[in-house]
Amino acid sequence: MNRTTWILTGVIVILAAGLIGVLLYIGNQPEPTRGVQPIVAVEEMEPDSSIWGENFPNQYSSLLKTETNNTATAFGGSDPYSKLEQDPRLVTLFAGYGFSKDYNEERGHMNSLTDVRATKRIVETTPGTCYSCKSANNPGLWDEMGMAEYDKTSFSVLGQDIKEPIGCANCHEAETMKLIVTNPALEEALMAQGKDWRTFTRQEMRTVVCANCHVEYYFAGEGKYLTFPWEGGTKIENIAEYYQELGFKDWDHPNSGAPMIKMQHPEYEFFTADSTHFKAGVACADCHMPYTRDGAAKYSTHDVHSPLLNAEAACGQCHTDVAYVTGRVATIQGQVREAMDASEDAIVAAISAIEKAAAIAEANQDLLTEARNLHREAQLRWDFIAAENSMGFHNPEEALRILGNATDLARQAQLKAVEAAGTPDILQTTQLQSPAGQ
Amino acid sequence: MNRTTWILTGVIVILAAGLIGVLLYIGNQPEPTRGVQPIVAVEEMEPDSSIWGENFPNQYSSLLKTETNNTATAFGGSDPYSKLEQDPRLVTLFAGYGFSKDYNEERGHMNSLTDVRATKRIVETTPGTCYSCKSANNPGLWDEMGMAEYDKTSFSVLGQDIKEPIGCANCHEAETMKLIVTNPALEEALMAQGKDWRTFTRQEMRTVVCANCHVEYYFAGEGKYLTFPWEGGTKIENIAEYYQELGFKDWDHPNSGAPMIKMQHPEYEFFTADSTHFKAGVACADCHMPYTRDGAAKYSTHDVHSPLLNAEAACGQCHTDVAYVTGRVATIQGQVREAMDASEDAIVAAISAIEKAAAIAEANQDLLTEARNLHREAQLRWDFIAAENSMGFHNPEEALRILGNATDLARQAQLKAVEAAGTPDILQTTQLQSPAGQ
Repeated sequence: MNRTTWILTGVIVILAAGLIGVLLYIGNQPEPTRGVQPIVAVEEMEPDSSIWGENFPNQYSSLLKTETNNTATAFGGSDPYSKLEQDPRLVTLFAGYGFSKDYNEERGHMNSLTDVRATKRIVETTPGTCYSCKSANNPGLWDEMGMAEYDKTSFSVLGQDIKEPIGCANCHEAETMKLIVTNPALEEALMAQGKDWRTFTRQEMRTVVCANCHVEYYFAGEGKYLTFPWEGGTKIENIAEYYQELGFKDWDHPNSGAPMIKMQHPEYEFFTADSTHFKAGVACADCHMPYTRDGAAKYSTHDVHSPLLNAEAACGQCHTDVAYVTGRVATIQGQVREAMDASEDAIVAAISAIEKAAAIAEANQDLLTEARNLHREAQLRWDFIAAENSMGFHNPEEALRILGNATDLARQAQLKAVEAAGTPDILQTTQLQSPAGQ
Repeated sequence: MNRTTWILTGVIVILAAGLIGVLLYIGNQPEPTRGVQPIVAVEEMEPDSSIWGENFPNQYSSLLKTETNNTATAFGGSDPYSKLEQDPRLVTLFAGYGFSKDYNEERGHMNSLTDVRATKRIVETTPGTCYSCKSANNPGLWDEMGMAEYDKTSFSVLGQDIKEPIGCANCHEAETMKLIVTNPALEEALMAQGKDWRTFTRQEMRTVVCANCHVEYYFAGEGKYLTFPWEGGTKIENIAEYYQELGFKDWDHPNSGAPMIKMQHPEYEFFTADSTHFKAGVACADCHMPYTRDGAAKYSTHDVHSPLLNAEAACGQCHTDVAYVTGRVATIQGQVREAMDASEDAIVAAISAIEKAAAIAEANQDLLTEARNLHREAQLRWDFIAAENSMGFHNPEEALRILGNATDLARQAQLKAVEAAGTPDILQTTQLQSPAGQ
């Protein structure tokens, strides 16, 4: 070998050694991890949100704000005013049921335990099922006891194991922080529709996790088994038909005698019924947990409340003209409130007519049954919108469609009551009461 | 002077001469003109659109397409199908009035004269006023005769001077091509609200010129003076109140005996009632006359029809996902059609109940009057949406609000008829007819 060959060979050896060194270095690197290195280890289904909060201080401190950050909006918000005082027709509509005694606007997530324990709707026979949407202890308890056992336990006994309000464990898997369905009733309801949430996209999960609680449900059978009435679909007509086929009722209305259904906060069903925002791919969290800045940190706020209370951040993620957008919300909510008033007036009139018709001994009992069923169907439609927390904005056209239908059915109930009574005197009496009482 | 001074002076003289030359050249230039140099001069209010078309061949040739380009959409379009055959309830609703005999979906602008002359609704006593929205001869005739004289002339006599269908002169000033209000009734109606269209922006004019025709109107007094009922505002409640205060009716319903109002295509009133598109600054022409390319030319198409028939151009000017948008239109129009069906069923039932109540000799006449007024109010609200050409899409929430209200009022009319009759038998008879007739 001459001198040149020696030099070239040397260079090759050095390069090869360098390459081997680099490859060895890469091979010895630890497994890739998430961007955020946990400070503390969090157990799966850990009920105490403050432990998760060590790793996610911004999310946690914004969650804490839901305890006190409870402001009213024009038609809702989180100020716990009495709905019964604000609209006394509700006392008539819910007569004979707990909601006629105590029905307040709900406060933020951190108040869930305090408020469910304070409501007069909780009585000695209340089942543990009523805790299903109120505590971060639930995922652990469901895992340990099974949901059937959980639901069978009385509210007071189960309450001894329930210490935490709604928290991280209700929606997150601890190891990966992935969004997950934790409520077995939701998993079962989705499965009944042939849906597996484990195949959902992240954006879909940002809506579905809210359905852990923000849905219509009922307590099935003696065991008060938490069930979502979704087998035939989640539109109001599907739900009404499901309850009809089941012959289910929450209570009997003492004035009309109708077998009634109380609707619960069906935000998920209502929003996903082809609303314009849902069809555009918007998730619940986009508006209710918008990305927020705190110093240099950007995170999805967990101070969940009405987007109207921080419209710049909430609506401004997509809409450039926030004043235009909030103006639209005001217009739409005003229209829905007006339609809701018409429904309430019509249902109150129907209850009065049926009650008076039933007091007539020779009234046609078949027609009375039809009138009562019309009352039930009218009121559950109205309540689907009234109990839903957006004054129709989550799906404006659907709200107005359903309320129009509710009013129509209530007026038909009134007509049917007159037919059952065989005389329109039952109407005239109602109308004469007001001047007489003046 | 030394040599340098001579040279500098020479340069100054040359520069000064050059400057003067340039200034003289600029001073002798002709006045600045519009971008498009007219090929022919067009007289003000020229009725013949083909003359305007020499200067604006693209706009004119697209206008010509409205003669034959008449395609149906799911709920409208420009195919002249019979609305009475498609929905026989209309025959009952419009009984005793021309619309129960002949009521077709309208065709494009170029057919305006042919179609108004062909309809069976035109009779010997029809006033010339009926030509007000049908011809490019109108601006000239109004200028020459005055609107009062025009409206007093009979349809057949006036028709001799009417030769052109809707055309350029209905919306444009010939010299400047500016958009202008040509219908004196529109100018008067705006003035009654303290509005002067001469102060409007161009974008506002791109909506207001459509109100030359696409509005609710009536014929006032013996002279059949064309009048828009806008004095108290243009919402349906304002219009209903206006007609109540005036004691106006278009006809008496032969079955219910109610004094009725026929609504006419109130697109302008309905769209501008705080609809989402109107509030966002969108004009009629944005969707119905979208900017279109033909080779290298870009122009606002004058082939005015449903935006659904060219959604890519119409909706795509603002919306990126046209499939999403047309899906929304389908959903909304389906909801509105459903609400409209409910209103029609309720009004037909009210007409039947009032007719049967009135046949009872001892029926309470005051209550019958109330029932008839409820029929009138229900039907004019329904018709405000039914006669409006968008199946509610121009203002979805407003459509559903109004239809819900119409159904409620119709059911109240039924109840009032029962009270007037003193017996619900008038209802039972109606309902027994169907099984008996099977």
